[in-house]
Amino acid sequence: MSFRERLKKIVEQVDGAIGALIMGYDGIPIDESIRPNASLDVQLLAVEYATLLKEIKRTVDVLKTGGMEEVSITSGELRVVIRALNEEFFMVLLLEKEGNFGLGRYLLRLNAQAFRDMLQD
Amino acid sequence: MSFRERLKKIVEQVDGAIGALIMGYDGIPIDESIRPNASLDVQLLAVEYATLLKEIKRTVDVLKTGGMEEVSITSGELRVVIRALNEEFFMVLLLEKEGNFGLGRYLLRLNAQAFRDMLQD
Repeated sequence: MSFRERLKKIVEQVDGAIGALIMGYDGIPIDESIRPNASLDVQLLAVEYATLLKEIKRTVDVLKTGGMEEVSITSGELRVVIRALNEEFFMVLLLEKEGNFGLGRYLLRLNAQAFRDMLQD
Repeated sequence: MSFRERLKKIVEQVDGAIGALIMGYDGIPIDESIRPNASLDVQLLAVEYATLLKEIKRTVDVLKTGGMEEVSITSGELRVVIRALNEEFFMVLLLEKEGNFGLGRYLLRLNAQAFRDMLQD
């Protein structure tokens, strides 16, 4: 399965999912699957979250409570769930506010190793 | 009920909770309830997370997807759940990795309005 196929499957399975991406900390997506009717500026979002995630990673490193694994950020209209893959890449799931957060987190965790393996090939 | 009593009640109800705080974005806690055996440097954590949360708030504002409501950050040994209260203050729940994340989030949401009211008095 390609990156995109795997991301698409996650988006299709989760109620309220808007899209899923594999991204680098440099703000450049490796691949993405976005619902056709999505009204978000995914490009802007990707760049802003990559910058932010670097800050979060720095803070987590300072606090020495183990490596960063998962981050979720909920605002008025959007829930963003992020799972770190390795030192270079992370995955992002964008959800409507009332989307299935629990299932989304679970599927990110479930797919993380497969994505890690694909990134190393 | 005082800030501390309400925070203590949350910590006691949630399996794996280490502590709960009401904090300002300036890094100064208003009040806190920390389990006696906690080995964390809560002071350092408070300052680092306040700085980080300002960054997260800035990003959320740039993306215009509604105001920041909830943030959770999981590292190897610790889960930090944060709920924004108003422009100045937020609440933090510190959990062991295997603690009851769902109940913790629920209790933060449930208590947010009471804390907001207390902060305005």
